[in-house]
Amino acid sequence: MTDSPEDRLTRQFAFLTEADRLKTVLRGTTITDGARRENSGEHSWHLALYALALAGEAPEGVSIDRVIRMLLIHDLVEIDVGDVPIHSQGGQAHGSAAIQAAEAAAAARIFGLLPEDQGAPLLALWHEFEANESPDAVFAKSLDRVQPVLQNIAAGGGTWTEYQVTWPQLEARVGVKIARGLPRVWDWVRARARPFFD
Amino acid sequence: MTDSPEDRLTRQFAFLTEADRLKTVLRGTTITDGARRENSGEHSWHLALYALALAGEAPEGVSIDRVIRMLLIHDLVEIDVGDVPIHSQGGQAHGSAAIQAAEAAAAARIFGLLPEDQGAPLLALWHEFEANESPDAVFAKSLDRVQPVLQNIAAGGGTWTEYQVTWPQLEARVGVKIARGLPRVWDWVRARARPFFD
Repeated sequence: MTDSPEDRLTRQFAFLTEADRLKTVLRGTTITDGARRENSGEHSWHLALYALALAGEAPEGVSIDRVIRMLLIHDLVEIDVGDVPIHSQGGQAHGSAAIQAAEAAAAARIFGLLPEDQGAPLLALWHEFEANESPDAVFAKSLDRVQPVLQNIAAGGGTWTEYQVTWPQLEARVGVKIARGLPRVWDWVRARARPFFD
Repeated sequence: MTDSPEDRLTRQFAFLTEADRLKTVLRGTTITDGARRENSGEHSWHLALYALALAGEAPEGVSIDRVIRMLLIHDLVEIDVGDVPIHSQGGQAHGSAAIQAAEAAAAARIFGLLPEDQGAPLLALWHEFEANESPDAVFAKSLDRVQPVLQNIAAGGGTWTEYQVTWPQLEARVGVKIARGLPRVWDWVRARARPFFD
């Protein structure tokens, strides 16, 4: 709180330079041309665009600008923990207690690089996203779930084959969660994803 | 305007899938580990984080949420036109009339994929960014100019050598523009960039 203006800039740039590392974390999904894995930095950008384009699907009371901020920071913990694909290890790894604890420690470290008055609210915003209870978080999480499905559709099935995903698994691991925040979107996506599992 | 809800989703997803292509547009700057060129999708994400972290440097009246939206969409035209590095062709290519016209056509095409009531305001926001006159646009443009300098500092000089950039060129092409929207930031960055040109 008592940082000099120059100290504040030094901390802000330390955070921004550290954030750059998210561009080297690779996800389970490819970019739509199928040529390479998507990284979590560009994924976060794409999700923020999803929030903009699908703003009309948000329930009354959701703040799209707040959702965008959430999505911009939601994956920074992967700098320390890596991405855990939802279909990896038979769908068991994602959201385990060990990974949740590691992600919470990563969030404290990374947002702690910023001046305290900036890092603390961003850390709280990250925890809100993870808790998936507030309307903003539910909407943001649903976008995070639907984007990889669209990527796989655009890439002609993408990495579903590699992870040997079945249709019931996709419905259970992904569809239910998308439908929670984006019911009409899941109807649209479902009809276009289903044929890849025939 | 009379699109059905399903037609709207179809257009929104056409836009979002097209936007994915920005992840394949490579810039003149590397990521901070120097291992590869940065793409314009992850760059746009990084800039939105810059807006969040450096919000305190914005003059009174700037809307950070609006700046973030601007930065999220500012490079989409590169899907059609490609990135034009500021130091390429001796600093002459960037901002030429031919490129400006091509970018405006690209903006009309890409934002035109969305339903009209969403595409038109985003197109206007893109033009506002390009005009670099409103306080939001000046702040956003300054962030767009300062991030590559930080990337090059972090990468030990980065691509300045490759483009044979001199210190007076960096001051003229980049420093003046950063100083316009982020005077205190330019002081901080200048002191850390200068040694690479000794």
